[in-house]
Amino acid sequence: MTVDACVFCDIVAERGPAHVVYADDDVVAFLDRAPIARGHTLVVPRRHSSGLSDLDPRYGTPLLSAAQRVANALKGTEFGAHGVNLALNDGRAAMQTVFHTHVHVVPRRSGDKLTFAKGLLTRRAGDLETVAAQLRSTIAALP
Amino acid sequence: MTVDACVFCDIVAERGPAHVVYADDDVVAFLDRAPIARGHTLVVPRRHSSGLSDLDPRYGTPLLSAAQRVANALKGTEFGAHGVNLALNDGRAAMQTVFHTHVHVVPRRSGDKLTFAKGLLTRRAGDLETVAAQLRSTIAALP
Ligand SMILES: [Zn+2]
Ligand SMILES: [Zn+2]
Repeated sequence: MTVDACVFCDIVAERGPAHVVYADDDVVAFLDRAPIARGHTLVVPRRHSSGLSDLDPRYGTPLLSAAQRVANALKGTEFGAHGVNLALNDGRAAMQTVFHTHVHVVPRRSGDKLTFAKGLLTRRAGDLETVAAQLRSTIAALP
Repeated sequence: MTVDACVFCDIVAERGPAHVVYADDDVVAFLDRAPIARGHTLVVPRRHSSGLSDLDPRYGTPLLSAAQRVANALKGTEFGAHGVNLALNDGRAAMQTVFHTHVHVVPRRSGDKLTFAKGLLTRRAGDLETVAAQLRSTIAALP
Protein backbone atom coordinates (compact mmCIF):
# COMPACT_ATOMS: atom_id res chain seq x y z
CA MET A 1 0.00 0.00 0.00
CA THR A 2 1.39 3.40 -0.93
CA VAL A 3 1.02 6.42 1.32
CA ASP A 4 -1.35 7.90 -1.28
CA ALA A 5 -3.79 5.05 -0.74
CA CYS A 6 -3.62 5.11 3.06
CA VAL A 7 -6.94 5.81 4.78
CA PHE A 8 -5.21 7.10 7.93
CA CYS A 9 -2.97 9.46 5.93
CA ASP A 10 -6.22 10.74 4.38
CA ILE A 11 -7.63 11.37 7.87
CA VAL A 12 -4.42 13.12 8.97
CA ALA A 13 -4.58 15.32 5.87
CA GLU A 14 -8.30 15.98 6.53
CA ARG A 15 -9.15 14.43 3.17
CA GLY A 16 -10.96 11.45 4.67
CA PRO A 17 -13.95 11.23 7.00
CA ALA A 18 -13.23 10.58 10.67
CA HIS A 19 -14.52 11.41 14.13
CA VAL A 20 -11.45 13.25 15.39
CA VAL A 21 -11.31 13.71 19.17
CA TYR A 22 -7.80 15.15 19.58
CA ALA A 23 -4.97 16.44 17.40
CA ASP A 24 -1.61 18.10 17.91
CA ASP A 25 1.54 18.70 15.86
CA ASP A 26 2.59 15.03 16.03
CA VAL A 27 -0.50 12.84 16.25
CA VAL A 28 -4.22 12.65 15.49
CA ALA A 29 -6.74 10.69 17.57
CA PHE A 30 -10.10 9.57 16.19
CA LEU A 31 -12.78 6.99 16.95
CA ASP A 32 -12.34 3.45 15.68
CA ARG A 33 -15.10 2.90 13.09
CA ALA A 34 -15.72 -0.60 14.43
CA PRO A 35 -15.32 -0.08 18.18
CA ILE A 36 -14.85 -2.92 20.66
CA ALA A 37 -16.40 -0.64 23.28
CA ARG A 38 -17.98 2.83 23.34
CA GLY A 39 -15.17 5.42 23.11
CA HIS A 40 -12.61 3.05 21.48
CA THR A 41 -10.10 5.47 19.97
CA LEU A 42 -7.07 5.22 17.68
CA VAL A 43 -4.01 7.47 17.97
CA VAL A 44 -1.88 7.75 14.82
CA PRO A 45 1.41 9.53 14.05
CA ARG A 46 0.95 12.21 11.39
CA ARG A 47 3.87 10.79 9.42
CA HIS A 48 3.14 7.51 7.67
CA SER A 49 4.77 4.27 8.80
CA SER A 50 3.37 0.85 8.04
CA GLY A 51 4.09 -0.81 11.37
CA LEU A 52 6.37 -1.03 14.36
CA SER A 53 9.58 -1.60 12.39
CA ASP A 54 9.48 1.64 10.41
CA LEU A 55 7.93 3.81 13.15
CA ASP A 56 10.32 6.54 14.32
CA PRO A 57 10.77 5.77 18.06
CA ARG A 58 10.59 9.51 18.77
CA TYR A 59 6.86 9.14 18.19
CA GLY A 60 6.71 7.19 21.46
CA THR A 61 6.26 10.23 23.65
CA PRO A 62 3.58 12.09 21.65
CA LEU A 63 1.69 8.81 21.11
CA LEU A 64 1.82 8.01 24.83
CA SER A 65 0.90 11.53 25.82
CA ALA A 66 -2.17 11.59 23.55
CA ALA A 67 -3.19 8.10 24.68
CA GLN A 68 -3.00 9.31 28.29
CA ARG A 69 -5.30 12.23 27.48
CA VAL A 70 -7.84 9.98 25.81
CA ALA A 71 -7.58 7.46 28.68
CA ASN A 72 -8.13 10.19 31.27
CA ALA A 73 -11.19 11.39 29.40
CA LEU A 74 -12.59 7.86 29.14
CA LYS A 75 -12.08 7.44 32.89
CA GLY A 76 -14.11 10.58 33.61
CA THR A 77 -17.72 10.46 34.75
CA GLU A 78 -19.11 10.87 31.22
CA PHE A 79 -17.61 7.58 30.03
CA GLY A 80 -17.00 5.84 33.34
CA ALA A 81 -14.14 3.53 32.33
CA HIS A 82 -12.32 1.81 35.20
CA GLY A 83 -9.24 1.09 33.11
CA VAL A 84 -7.96 1.06 29.55
CA ASN A 85 -5.99 -1.23 27.30
CA LEU A 86 -3.46 0.39 24.99
CA ALA A 87 -2.50 -1.86 22.10
CA LEU A 88 -0.28 -1.59 19.07
CA ASN A 89 -0.91 -4.54 16.77
CA ASP A 90 2.03 -5.04 14.45
CA GLY A 91 1.49 -7.28 11.43
CA ARG A 92 -1.42 -9.24 10.03
CA ALA A 93 -0.59 -12.13 12.40
CA ALA A 94 -1.14 -9.70 15.29
CA MET A 95 -4.52 -8.48 13.96
CA GLN A 96 -3.25 -5.29 12.28
CA THR A 97 -5.70 -4.40 9.54
CA VAL A 98 -4.74 -0.83 8.57
CA PHE A 99 -1.08 -0.48 7.67
CA HIS A 100 -0.50 2.97 9.09
CA THR A 101 0.84 2.42 12.62
CA HIS A 102 -1.77 3.15 15.29
CA VAL A 103 -2.35 2.75 19.00
CA HIS A 104 -5.73 1.49 20.23
CA VAL A 105 -7.17 3.03 23.39
CA VAL A 106 -9.93 0.71 24.61
CA PRO A 107 -12.00 1.63 27.68
CA ARG A 108 -12.66 -1.18 30.16
CA ARG A 109 -15.08 -1.61 33.05
CA SER A 110 -14.77 -3.95 36.00
CA GLY A 111 -16.31 -7.29 35.14
CA ASP A 112 -16.75 -6.50 31.45
CA LYS A 113 -14.90 -9.57 30.18
CA LEU A 114 -17.95 -11.06 28.46
CA THR A 115 -19.07 -7.72 27.00
CA PHE A 116 -15.48 -7.12 25.88
CA ALA A 117 -15.24 -10.55 24.22
CA LYS A 118 -18.60 -9.90 22.52
CA GLY A 119 -17.32 -6.47 21.41
CA LEU A 120 -14.29 -8.11 19.83
CA LEU A 121 -16.65 -10.21 17.72
CA THR A 122 -19.39 -7.71 16.89
CA ARG A 123 -17.54 -4.37 16.81
CA ARG A 124 -20.70 -2.32 16.28
CA ALA A 125 -20.30 1.35 15.49
CA GLY A 126 -23.20 2.91 17.40
CA ASP A 127 -23.60 6.69 17.17
CA LEU A 128 -20.00 7.72 16.55
CA GLU A 129 -20.80 11.40 16.11
CA THR A 130 -22.38 11.64 19.57
CA VAL A 131 -19.53 9.70 21.18
CA ALA A 132 -16.95 11.86 19.42
CA ALA A 133 -18.60 15.11 20.51
CA GLN A 134 -18.70 13.90 24.11
CA LEU A 135 -15.09 12.71 24.05
CA ARG A 136 -13.83 15.89 22.36
CA SER A 137 -15.42 18.10 25.00
CA THR A 138 -14.20 15.86 27.83
CA ILE A 139 -10.64 15.97 26.49
CA ALA A 140 -10.83 19.73 26.02
CA ALA A 141 -11.91 20.09 29.67
CA LEU A 142 -9.02 18.01 31.07
CA PRO A 143 -6.68 19.86 33.46
CA MET B 1 1.46 -0.99 47.16
CA THR B 2 4.50 1.08 48.08
CA VAL B 3 7.52 1.30 45.86
CA ASP B 4 9.43 -0.73 48.46
CA ALA B 5 7.10 -3.66 47.96
CA CYS B 6 7.11 -3.52 44.15
CA VAL B 7 8.41 -6.65 42.44
CA PHE B 8 9.32 -4.74 39.28
CA CYS B 9 11.24 -2.09 41.26
CA ASP B 10 13.12 -5.03 42.79
CA ILE B 11 13.98 -6.30 39.33
CA VAL B 12 15.08 -2.84 38.18
CA ALA B 13 17.31 -2.57 41.27
CA GLU B 14 18.66 -6.10 40.62
CA ARG B 15 17.30 -7.19 44.00
CA GLY B 16 14.69 -9.53 42.54
CA PRO B 17 15.03 -12.53 40.21
CA ALA B 18 14.24 -11.98 36.54
CA HIS B 19 15.27 -13.12 33.09
CA VAL B 20 16.48 -9.77 31.79
CA VAL B 21 16.89 -9.56 28.03
CA TYR B 22 17.66 -5.86 27.57
CA ALA B 23 18.40 -2.83 29.72
CA ASP B 24 19.41 0.78 29.19
CA ASP B 25 19.40 4.01 31.21
CA ASP B 26 15.62 4.35 31.07
CA VAL B 27 14.04 0.90 30.87
CA VAL B 28 14.55 -2.78 31.66
CA ALA B 29 13.09 -5.65 29.61
CA PHE B 30 12.62 -9.14 31.02
CA LEU B 31 10.59 -12.25 30.31
CA ASP B 32 7.03 -12.49 31.60
CA ARG B 33 7.01 -15.27 34.20
CA ALA B 34 3.68 -16.54 32.89
CA PRO B 35 4.08 -16.08 29.14
CA ILE B 36 1.21 -16.18 26.68
CA ALA B 37 3.71 -17.27 24.05
CA ARG B 38 7.41 -18.19 23.96
CA GLY B 39 9.44 -14.96 24.18
CA HIS B 40 6.66 -12.87 25.79
CA THR B 41 8.57 -9.93 27.28
CA LEU B 42 7.76 -6.97 29.56
CA VAL B 43 9.40 -3.56 29.22
CA VAL B 44 9.31 -1.38 32.35
CA PRO B 45 10.44 2.18 33.10
CA ARG B 46 13.18 2.24 35.75
CA ARG B 47 11.24 4.85 37.71
CA HIS B 48 8.16 3.54 39.50
CA SER B 49 4.68 4.52 38.38
CA SER B 50 1.57 2.53 39.16
CA GLY B 51 -0.22 2.89 35.84
CA LEU B 52 -0.86 5.07 32.83
CA SER B 53 -2.02 8.14 34.79
CA ASP B 54 1.20 8.64 36.74
CA LEU B 55 3.61 7.52 34.00
CA ASP B 56 5.83 10.37 32.79
CA PRO B 57 4.98 10.64 29.06
CA ARG B 58 8.67 11.16 28.33
CA TYR B 59 9.02 7.42 28.91
CA GLY B 60 7.11 6.90 25.66
CA THR B 61 10.17 7.00 23.46
CA PRO B 62 12.50 4.73 25.47
CA LEU B 63 9.63 2.27 26.04
CA LEU B 64 8.80 2.22 22.33
CA SER B 65 12.44 1.98 21.32
CA ALA B 66 13.07 -1.02 23.60
CA ALA B 67 9.82 -2.68 22.50
CA GLN B 68 10.96 -2.29 18.89
CA ARG B 69 14.27 -4.00 19.70
CA VAL B 70 12.54 -6.91 21.39
CA ALA B 71 10.00 -7.14 18.55
CA ASN B 72 12.75 -7.18 15.93
CA ALA B 73 14.54 -9.96 17.81
CA LEU B 74 11.32 -11.98 18.11
CA LYS B 75 10.79 -11.59 14.35
CA GLY B 76 14.25 -13.01 13.62
CA THR B 77 14.80 -16.59 12.50
CA GLU B 78 15.47 -17.85 16.04
CA PHE B 79 11.98 -16.97 17.25
CA GLY B 80 10.13 -16.73 13.95
CA ALA B 81 7.34 -14.35 14.96
CA HIS B 82 5.31 -12.90 12.09
CA GLY B 83 4.01 -10.02 14.17
CA VAL B 84 3.79 -8.74 17.72
CA ASN B 85 1.18 -7.20 19.98
CA LEU B 86 2.31 -4.39 22.25
CA ALA B 87 -0.06 -3.85 25.16
CA LEU B 88 -0.20 -1.61 28.16
CA ASN B 89 -2.96 -2.75 30.50
CA ASP B 90 -3.99 0.05 32.82
CA GLY B 91 -6.09 -0.86 35.83
CA ARG B 92 -7.45 -4.08 37.28
CA ALA B 93 -10.46 -3.82 34.93
CA ALA B 94 -7.99 -3.93 32.03
CA MET B 95 -6.14 -7.02 33.36
CA GLN B 96 -3.25 -5.16 35.00
CA THR B 97 -1.89 -7.40 37.77
CA VAL B 98 1.44 -5.77 38.69
CA PHE B 99 1.11 -2.09 39.56
CA HIS B 100 4.39 -0.89 38.11
CA THR B 101 3.57 0.29 34.59
CA HIS B 102 4.76 -2.15 31.93
CA VAL B 103 4.46 -2.82 28.22
CA HIS B 104 3.85 -6.38 27.03
CA VAL B 105 5.60 -7.54 23.85
CA VAL B 106 3.83 -10.69 22.67
CA PRO B 107 5.11 -12.57 19.61
CA ARG B 108 2.46 -13.77 17.16
CA ARG B 109 2.47 -16.24 14.29
CA SER B 110 0.09 -16.41 11.35
CA GLY B 111 -2.90 -18.54 12.25
CA ASP B 112 -2.00 -18.79 15.94
CA LYS B 113 -5.37 -17.56 17.20
CA LEU B 114 -6.24 -20.81 18.96
CA THR B 115 -2.74 -21.27 20.40
CA PHE B 116 -2.83 -17.63 21.50
CA ALA B 117 -6.23 -18.03 23.18
CA LYS B 118 -4.93 -21.19 24.88
CA GLY B 119 -1.79 -19.29 25.98
CA LEU B 120 -3.99 -16.60 27.55
CA LEU B 121 -5.59 -19.29 29.69
CA THR B 122 -2.61 -21.51 30.52
CA ARG B 123 0.32 -19.03 30.55
CA ARG B 124 2.92 -21.75 31.07
CA ALA B 125 6.46 -20.67 31.83
CA GLY B 126 8.52 -23.25 29.94
CA ASP B 127 12.30 -22.95 30.13
CA LEU B 128 12.65 -19.21 30.72
CA GLU B 129 16.42 -19.31 31.13
CA THR B 130 16.93 -20.84 27.68
CA VAL B 131 14.47 -18.41 26.09
CA ALA B 132 16.13 -15.45 27.82
CA ALA B 133 19.63 -16.48 26.71
CA GLN B 134 18.43 -16.83 23.12
CA LEU B 135 16.59 -13.51 23.17
CA ARG B 136 19.48 -11.65 24.81
CA SER B 137 21.94 -12.82 22.17
CA THR B 138 19.49 -12.08 19.36
CA ILE B 139 18.93 -8.54 20.68
CA ALA B 140 22.68 -8.01 21.11
CA ALA B 141 23.20 -9.04 17.46
CA LEU B 142 20.59 -6.61 16.05
CA PRO B 143 21.96 -4.02 13.64
ZN1 LIG C 1 -0.65 6.42 6.26
ZN1 LIG D 1 7.83 -0.37 40.95
